Amino acid sequence: MNPVRTATVFTHRRPAETAPAIAALLGLARENGAVLRLDPDETRKHELEPAEGLVLDARVDPHVDICFALGGDGTILSALRTYAGTGVPVFAVNFGEIGFLATVDRDEAPDGFRHAFRAEFEVLSLPGIEVLGKRGRWLAMNDVSIHRQPGKRVADLDYSIADDEVGRVRCDGLVVATPAGSTGYNLANGGPVLAWGVAGFVVSFIAPHSLTARALVVAPSDVLTVTNRSHEEPVDVTLDGRPICVLVPGEEIRARFLDRQGRLAQLAGTTFYHRLREKFGRLATLP
Amino acid sequence: MNPVRTATVFTHRRPAETAPAIAALLGLARENGAVLRLDPDETRKHELEPAEGLVLDARVDPHVDICFALGGDGTILSALRTYAGTGVPVFAVNFGEIGFLATVDRDEAPDGFRHAFRAEFEVLSLPGIEVLGKRGRWLAMNDVSIHRQPGKRVADLDYSIADDEVGRVRCDGLVVATPAGSTGYNLANGGPVLAWGVAGFVVSFIAPHSLTARALVVAPSDVLTVTNRSHEEPVDVTLDGRPICVLVPGEEIRARFLDRQGRLAQLAGTTFYHRLREKFGRLATLP
Amino acid sequence: MNPVRTATVFTHRRPAETAPAIAALLGLARENGAVLRLDPDETRKHELEPAEGLVLDARVDPHVDICFALGGDGTILSALRTYAGTGVPVFAVNFGEIGFLATVDRDEAPDGFRHAFRAEFEVLSLPGIEVLGKRGRWLAMNDVSIHRQPGKRVADLDYSIADDEVGRVRCDGLVVATPAGSTGYNLANGGPVLAWGVAGFVVSFIAPHSLTARALVVAPSDVLTVTNRSHEEPVDVTLDGRPICVLVPGEEIRARFLDRQGRLAQLAGTTFYHRLREKFGRLATLP
Amino acid sequence: MNPVRTATVFTHRRPAETAPAIAALLGLARENGAVLRLDPDETRKHELEPAEGLVLDARVDPHVDICFALGGDGTILSALRTYAGTGVPVFAVNFGEIGFLATVDRDEAPDGFRHAFRAEFEVLSLPGIEVLGKRGRWLAMNDVSIHRQPGKRVADLDYSIADDEVGRVRCDGLVVATPAGSTGYNLANGGPVLAWGVAGFVVSFIAPHSLTARALVVAPSDVLTVTNRSHEEPVDVTLDGRPICVLVPGEEIRARFLDRQGRLAQLAGTTFYHRLREKFGRLATLP
Repeated sequence: MNPVRTATVFTHRRPAETAPAIAALLGLARENGAVLRLDPDETRKHELEPAEGLVLDARVDPHVDICFALGGDGTILSALRTYAGTGVPVFAVNFGEIGFLATVDRDEAPDGFRHAFRAEFEVLSLPGIEVLGKRGRWLAMNDVSIHRQPGKRVADLDYSIADDEVGRVRCDGLVVATPAGSTGYNLANGGPVLAWGVAGFVVSFIAPHSLTARALVVAPSDVLTVTNRSHEEPVDVTLDGRPICVLVPGEEIRARFLDRQGRLAQLAGTTFYHRLREKFGRLATLP
Repeated sequence: MNPVRTATVFTHRRPAETAPAIAALLGLARENGAVLRLDPDETRKHELEPAEGLVLDARVDPHVDICFALGGDGTILSALRTYAGTGVPVFAVNFGEIGFLATVDRDEAPDGFRHAFRAEFEVLSLPGIEVLGKRGRWLAMNDVSIHRQPGKRVADLDYSIADDEVGRVRCDGLVVATPAGSTGYNLANGGPVLAWGVAGFVVSFIAPHSLTARALVVAPSDVLTVTNRSHEEPVDVTLDGRPICVLVPGEEIRARFLDRQGRLAQLAGTTFYHRLREKFGRLATLP
Repeated sequence: MNPVRTATVFTHRRPAETAPAIAALLGLARENGAVLRLDPDETRKHELEPAEGLVLDARVDPHVDICFALGGDGTILSALRTYAGTGVPVFAVNFGEIGFLATVDRDEAPDGFRHAFRAEFEVLSLPGIEVLGKRGRWLAMNDVSIHRQPGKRVADLDYSIADDEVGRVRCDGLVVATPAGSTGYNLANGGPVLAWGVAGFVVSFIAPHSLTARALVVAPSDVLTVTNRSHEEPVDVTLDGRPICVLVPGEEIRARFLDRQGRLAQLAGTTFYHRLREKFGRLATLP
Repeated sequence: MNPVRTATVFTHRRPAETAPAIAALLGLARENGAVLRLDPDETRKHELEPAEGLVLDARVDPHVDICFALGGDGTILSALRTYAGTGVPVFAVNFGEIGFLATVDRDEAPDGFRHAFRAEFEVLSLPGIEVLGKRGRWLAMNDVSIHRQPGKRVADLDYSIADDEVGRVRCDGLVVATPAGSTGYNLANGGPVLAWGVAGFVVSFIAPHSLTARALVVAPSDVLTVTNRSHEEPVDVTLDGRPICVLVPGEEIRARFLDRQGRLAQLAGTTFYHRLREKFGRLATLP
């Protein structure tokens, strides 16, 4: 891999926490004759002034050499979606709680950045889930979930694969997760962990009012269709934790596996299984 | 038990479905020299006109001999709460889907009513859960649940029993159920079935982001306190399926077991375990 | 409570580990003018010689003031069963891994013993499960489990309560647990935790080949009957972790709740819920 | 595909049940100018005499055109293992209870055989799991499980993937299943269903004495190592339901995914998802 010449940065909503990391990045950019591009949002959030090595109010450029994501899962997922399909690796620093996608924790950031500018990292491809509905097309890096609306009756959802109805479930909702997303909401529903190399995605149910609803790992070539079977109640659709649309009674969405969407920078020595053990340790800790 | 002289009726929101049963009840009331009291809501819903054996626009009277509840779980639970502590038995007919609390299904209603007017039934006492918060006091016959609000972050709930913090869980929510309610929302969360004679209540979690959250059956003498530990997000509180209040960050509610609150009329030969098997059969059926 | 005059001791199978505690107990017995009774097994295991304050090769006496149990769950459960119904409190010291029943850990033993000799403890009553079969009658303090035999087909078990068949399950086995036992094998099967004050017991299934098998909390007045429905295979019955009998095809056992069987000494300040949180912390620790 | 010239048959242990199907097969073989080969076991079991179209006491020939398997899962799995890697399709008729691998039920057998002799079927490739230990090498078509021995303490198992220890669990056992096997023992442990096209295998735990043990779908390129960490107790290893070896303390086995091992004949119109729904219906039925 070539050394880094242009980089961009996304940070989470508390700029005071990430300001030292931004300063460190800028210093390294200058040292390495590289340029740091910040979009209008980041420029304003960090109150940055023009300076050497800095491009302010930049538009998102699919030709940067690397994207730094400093934040929790939300920020990192957003960076992965933004650069999906471009080949730009996302180098993620955990400023959140669990940080499964991050390659370093915040206190190891400066050392991590040095490796990043020398292109001393591996790149791991991550699959996504393409979501198609009559209101749009979206890409999920972690998960898509469908929920009943608050104060409304339980959702009544039908799920079919390759035009075979597999089940119909009255439930609070349903989650469709990628391997990277399997350790999140899916796990909270009793779904399995999917190792990052698994080709497929997993469907699990939130509070199913049925005794037969079990988590199902779908083959990568199969299309999942979920239909709102209620006669009265709309349901909400959420992608990587953000609301994207509503399904009115009778409306459906389709989901399918798309390989090699995101590219995640990884420092040597941090395998998925190693992180899994660490993450499980954190998830299991009582307060 | 004495024969029935005064009866009241609650029906669900689709009066066309329950109209024949109302007519049957009125016929039997006249035959038996009894009186049927309908509150203003029911009077209007069924468009009833003054007639022998009928008291229209009646106020709720805690001295009736029996209360008929024709509907799904919502209608029956509402009848049980209305007559909690009065000793009035609720005779429930299932016009809904599962109808665990009902003693007869809708097509057996006329025969069931005949037994009811002759007081040929047993009465089963049901415990409730008293819910105390700074915004009020409520009685749940089935369950109390606490949910994160839609579009907001996961709830961050702390639960303590007898002033010992037992756990703190990031989750979609938490359900506290009576034995009668244990086969509903609690079961959807992987909670256990509690036989109707069990003294205690059960706490289960909706999509817990923790590997250690397990369903817990609380002793009848213990008080459960649930606190909203989020710094930013309010959570919703729902009782027997209806919203009752919100807990702002830092706010708590307390729940305790109250024995012998509701009284449920039961025709001979329908034990809890018999129904359990039937209900599980229905819950397990694939469409 | 009166100060202790006579005490007995049960220890686990590695006497080298418990020898210092035995010595401490003997010292305290002499200081307090009390007598320590050891049965032939314990006498031989610890290679004790006659001495002041020591009765060797003693028979089990239901009139001692206290029983010390030094070991893991097996030793403590055995002491509880031995003194069930006699009123003798069991003061348990954890020399095992989790030690939910123990009131002190091994390193706090000397201090704990001092409180014990002064009768400075509370006594908690524990229920048991009476097991009745054609081959005998037994008392379980933790749990009774039924297992398929290795190399044989899955077990085919039918369970009925109060003569209603509730379900029939092909499975590796079934566990019936008291509240004290609920945090053991039952929890491993996805069963709920039962607080110690709950009146009832819980049935859970080991690897059920059925989608409808759910944990069931049985009321204290109900009798559970489990029948081996296989035409060919016997199943094993285990009580508190030890084999007690076999059920041939068609054979059944009955289980019922018996209140106030064991008496457990408790130092002040160690509630069930406090321990629960500690134990969950240990169960959740990754290696 | 070419019409069938040579076929072999495996049947389960109750020959009286499969005798009519054998007669039908022989009739069709003669009609089609084909030959039916039976190994010594099958020859003896069905008490067959020499006849046209019949080769008795035949050795297993990897060049037959088709293998008929008449029985339950055990018989079908055995046929799949016998012909693994040869390209011979297994045409399975369900004489057992669930029969997920079978393409027709017993009462549809004659019609199914007719399609088979005309080679009117699709062939589905099934992956296997290769198991390597110091005592041998085996191929599982459904699952490999490791169990504690009866009357012994719980198993203490460590599982690593690609040399990373992922977890260590005290449990009754552990199951490693292919997609075809995921609806069996794995599902009984709360593991997910894996659609047949998924590349990967799933690890689940039987009665884990840990709160963090969750089902894990392993990537097809990863090797799973399971080690018996007990200092005292051996554990049993079972493959597709039959005992294969024991692991003494400290001993390990390795498992890896092998694609395209078995070949399963499928009549048109029976997709995996269609069967899934049917099978779930049967699994969910209460007696």
